[in-house]
Amino acid sequence: MAGRMGAMPFTIVSHVLAIGAAIMVLVWCIHFRGGLAWEATNKSLIFNIHPVLMLIGFIILGGEAIISYKALPLSKEVKKLIHLTLHAFALILGIVGISAAFKYHNESSIANLYSLHSWIGIGVICLYAIQWIFGFAMFFYPGGSAGVRAESLPWHVLFGLFVYILALATAILGFLEKLTFLESSGLAKYGNEAFLVNFTALVTILFGAFVVLTAVSPAHVEEEFSYSSI
Amino acid sequence: MAGRMGAMPFTIVSHVLAIGAAIMVLVWCIHFRGGLAWEATNKSLIFNIHPVLMLIGFIILGGEAIISYKALPLSKEVKKLIHLTLHAFALILGIVGISAAFKYHNESSIANLYSLHSWIGIGVICLYAIQWIFGFAMFFYPGGSAGVRAESLPWHVLFGLFVYILALATAILGFLEKLTFLESSGLAKYGNEAFLVNFTALVTILFGAFVVLTAVSPAHVEEEFSYSSI
Repeated sequence: MAGRMGAMPFTIVSHVLAIGAAIMVLVWCIHFRGGLAWEATNKSLIFNIHPVLMLIGFIILGGEAIISYKALPLSKEVKKLIHLTLHAFALILGIVGISAAFKYHNESSIANLYSLHSWIGIGVICLYAIQWIFGFAMFFYPGGSAGVRAESLPWHVLFGLFVYILALATAILGFLEKLTFLESSGLAKYGNEAFLVNFTALVTILFGAFVVLTAVSPAHVEEEFSYSSI
Repeated sequence: MAGRMGAMPFTIVSHVLAIGAAIMVLVWCIHFRGGLAWEATNKSLIFNIHPVLMLIGFIILGGEAIISYKALPLSKEVKKLIHLTLHAFALILGIVGISAAFKYHNESSIANLYSLHSWIGIGVICLYAIQWIFGFAMFFYPGGSAGVRAESLPWHVLFGLFVYILALATAILGFLEKLTFLESSGLAKYGNEAFLVNFTALVTILFGAFVVLTAVSPAHVEEEFSYSSI
């Protein structure tokens, strides 16, 4: 789909952006927001687990899982094992990260599940789990017949990217929602922290864009994709 | 890319979702938020132009422009003219819609361009304009050579969908930002208006997803897409 360009340059940019986004969310939650804790009297520290796990554990690890299948110079069986293992970790860390948000809400008497961020987020984690289970059963164990696998692979890729783009959108909604609440409580709209959070969200979008570009590009430059709508 | 399914069913669902989203944003801005006005002492009425024009004028018209090139049973030249004209109207209405947000901010002494929604939004409208100008020059007038056109078409599709997905993400950020501000000022988190706004955003996401599905599906079921990464 991406013309004659191979996936490799997109892969490298993805890794660099992943490191950048991971550092930025840690600086935000630890330096600006006071750190992370599962049990604390300052309930905000419980909340802080949420952005860190959702970005590093879910979005970045999930993105690396997508990239791994296209980019690693290994046999298909080994790549498949890495792909599904990374996605399993991403899913588990995502579920723990969502639990942290519920725990913070419950211990601070804040209503649960009222915002679009929470609604789409619940939808995304469910679709992600369904996609994982379906992919595992179809392509790993027990595995469909060769014909059914070939038939369903484009749908696996399409639905997987669809869910991943929704996950990215949810993350961006989360950054904006938290920052809007903080700004409504007096945080400076042009202050260092506001810029850091907005730039973390921008780097996250760019990371996701390069993950998707990696996924839709041919693994090697020699491969040609046909394109029939011209 | 979408297996053996033609674009037609996706197209029909897109139109239905477009009508739904358009009605919902009008009900929100007129019934719940008091109506639309370019000049008013109640500055909120100026703001209300923004979501209406950005959703109906920019997102929906832009989506219909994307669909039109795939779905209409007309000659390529006529489809191209409709495609670029609809995109031109979407771009112009988008610019007027953004102006309404600046006008509201300026007349209400609210800072401009501090939120991620505004940053990405400015980026999206610029990319949209660049994409339109490039598409016009390459595919309409004066037009590149056949080889260069064939070479650049997949990039036109890929970049166009990339910008459109960013536009959708920006719209969703906008709904969430406005609703978070309203909720910080006392709007009921589970009230009718909050549900309406969240559901408008959800229908907008679904509309966008079906526009993208239309664009990546073959125009006719007979066409087969090759997929080389299996």
